[in-house]
Amino acid sequence: MEFKIDREILLENLNYISRGLPSKSPMPILTGIKIEVTDTDLYMTSSNTDISVETFVNDSSLLITKPGKTVVPGRFFIDIIRKINSKQVSLSLVEDKILTIRADRGEYKLHIMDPLDYPNIDFVSLNNPLILPSEKFRNLIRQTVFATASSEKKPILTGVHFHLQDQVLTAVATDSFRLSQTKLEIDEYAPFDITVPNKSLDELSKVLDGYNENVFLYFSVNKLLVKFKNVLFQTRLLDGNYPDTSKLIPSEFPIVVKFYKDELLEAVERVSLLSPRDKERDREITYSIIKLSIDKNRSVHISTTNATIGDAFEELIPTDTSIASPLVIGFSSRYLIEALRSFDSTEVSLNFSEGVRPFVVKGEKDYYLTQLILPVRMD
Amino acid sequence: MEFKIDREILLENLNYISRGLPSKSPMPILTGIKIEVTDTDLYMTSSNTDISVETFVNDSSLLITKPGKTVVPGRFFIDIIRKINSKQVSLSLVEDKILTIRADRGEYKLHIMDPLDYPNIDFVSLNNPLILPSEKFRNLIRQTVFATASSEKKPILTGVHFHLQDQVLTAVATDSFRLSQTKLEIDEYAPFDITVPNKSLDELSKVLDGYNENVFLYFSVNKLLVKFKNVLFQTRLLDGNYPDTSKLIPSEFPIVVKFYKDELLEAVERVSLLSPRDKERDREITYSIIKLSIDKNRSVHISTTNATIGDAFEELIPTDTSIASPLVIGFSSRYLIEALRSFDSTEVSLNFSEGVRPFVVKGEKDYYLTQLILPVRMD
Repeated sequence: MEFKIDREILLENLNYISRGLPSKSPMPILTGIKIEVTDTDLYMTSSNTDISVETFVNDSSLLITKPGKTVVPGRFFIDIIRKINSKQVSLSLVEDKILTIRADRGEYKLHIMDPLDYPNIDFVSLNNPLILPSEKFRNLIRQTVFATASSEKKPILTGVHFHLQDQVLTAVATDSFRLSQTKLEIDEYAPFDITVPNKSLDELSKVLDGYNENVFLYFSVNKLLVKFKNVLFQTRLLDGNYPDTSKLIPSEFPIVVKFYKDELLEAVERVSLLSPRDKERDREITYSIIKLSIDKNRSVHISTTNATIGDAFEELIPTDTSIASPLVIGFSSRYLIEALRSFDSTEVSLNFSEGVRPFVVKGEKDYYLTQLILPVRMD
Repeated sequence: MEFKIDREILLENLNYISRGLPSKSPMPILTGIKIEVTDTDLYMTSSNTDISVETFVNDSSLLITKPGKTVVPGRFFIDIIRKINSKQVSLSLVEDKILTIRADRGEYKLHIMDPLDYPNIDFVSLNNPLILPSEKFRNLIRQTVFATASSEKKPILTGVHFHLQDQVLTAVATDSFRLSQTKLEIDEYAPFDITVPNKSLDELSKVLDGYNENVFLYFSVNKLLVKFKNVLFQTRLLDGNYPDTSKLIPSEFPIVVKFYKDELLEAVERVSLLSPRDKERDREITYSIIKLSIDKNRSVHISTTNATIGDAFEELIPTDTSIASPLVIGFSSRYLIEALRSFDSTEVSLNFSEGVRPFVVKGEKDYYLTQLILPVRMD
């Protein structure tokens, strides 16, 4: 194996590859990047068993002298290419033992691994894609993934459920305490029903960041493959049936209060500074309960009481209200903060049923987005 | 106590105060900020026993209705003022139990502590300052403090030694493996000899960042007080005599090699990617040994060998050389990287004695700066 390539092209592809590269692995070969050079093209592959990434390069800067394949220590290879300053790098395999990297007056030799030991990564075949604009696909992820469960107690809840029916793609996430749901109208495509791990979606968001053309989605029984540019990003799917969440979202809201989103968000953030903190079981996130009340004069108060530190109180002026009765409700400020941040709208509404029942956040411009939050009993 | 003030003015002063505020303290009262309002002025104080900060405000936005003093929970107070959006905030003490903060439609009540419990902070009296331009004082710190010891085994080495004699202020730091020394010519001032803890200097650098006027230094037997704007920043000094380092720096260098600093720095950073890593005892920093060799043709090579990963090799073209004999020397790449970063010069020289003896880095434009590095024996 011997080839030269523009360093920036190589690095750009390695940045994609790094998303699938584990820093440690029970299979040491997976800490390596598989490099394969044909007569005309360069392929690189990484896999951490959940995520596999492959990039295909036939850039005009690629000058192949000798085809071949190898597996190089992943992190070291990426670090060296990142730190190199030259326009071009030369890579060559010496006696199938050493990969030599030459750039300007530097020479780096990496002990390689046997490409025969690298597991065969079975990518979904590239037939019949669902084509989505990258930005819309990223939005589906961004507006739901934060509401997935981080605990593994109910593994299926650690993923986002994507469900296509009647030309509507629905994305849902819930950790049993709050739920995010959004939808996207799409062209004719066969129905499907998959749950994608939240970590894979986080990596996918990073990989697609700034990319605004179409992405191509391919499905198999247990995998999702996303293709864009010269990159294949594949993730395993979560096993099991996602719970039916369609019944959880109330449809009748006797109390509707509208706010400027930023005003509400900032008031909630300020009040939550003083709310008592507890660690949720199984996760290292502090959560904090605040109280929202609407009196018969339709003034809205957000408040909290902290026995050791003090009290916080904010009055908000709604942009519009429609209330059947006064209301006092307690909930995690973090859930409302994260829900509010998912909206692109300037104006949002809080929609309450009566009593201690889930409430819903909607945005005037985010027609398909629904954020549902379970209140807690206030003592 | 009751006053109003422009929120930005208050926050700016709290940012200074936060540098002296411990998050935890064996003396809980010190997690509070002492606030004192006279008929005309506002004073705030924080102290973590090593560092004490006091700011004095008589800004035109300050409207005092009632003098008084209190101690408020520090972090909460700062967080609230930081998150508030209004132009003005009102603070008032209710029955000496609660501090009420009002801003727009928000009201925050903090349980206060008894100001009589707050220890008396003894600031050095403001007589006879040594006046230095802030930028030059920051440079003295920046070019030396990284070379202090982080281990407490020899406590005196965890500080930078400042020593004034014959109108030259010398700053020295060493962790026994490398040494940084720089000097500043100053006007007439009485000789002194102090060692300032590295953590205090790190905080002081942050506090003075972006401030380019004069700072005023005041000394007592065991304290240094730095005054700038309306801020007093005081640190305790380290006890004990700083070792005499004047004999450690060689004066004869039979081998001198000059480089463009950035070229040398980048080559060392790249080679160090592959150098074997060990954890230094007592600190969580990995260090790594690289080899520098100069052959009789005056070509310079930097290299390392890593049994598990591979080898790195860089050839450098010096801008000038004067060598009496070939040289092979091993040292910690981190020490050379940190030393090189301390120079403002475009061109630097490495100055070697013969054999395994300390070598010195100098910069063409940094006349007074000397970085000394102890090599290690190469096997």
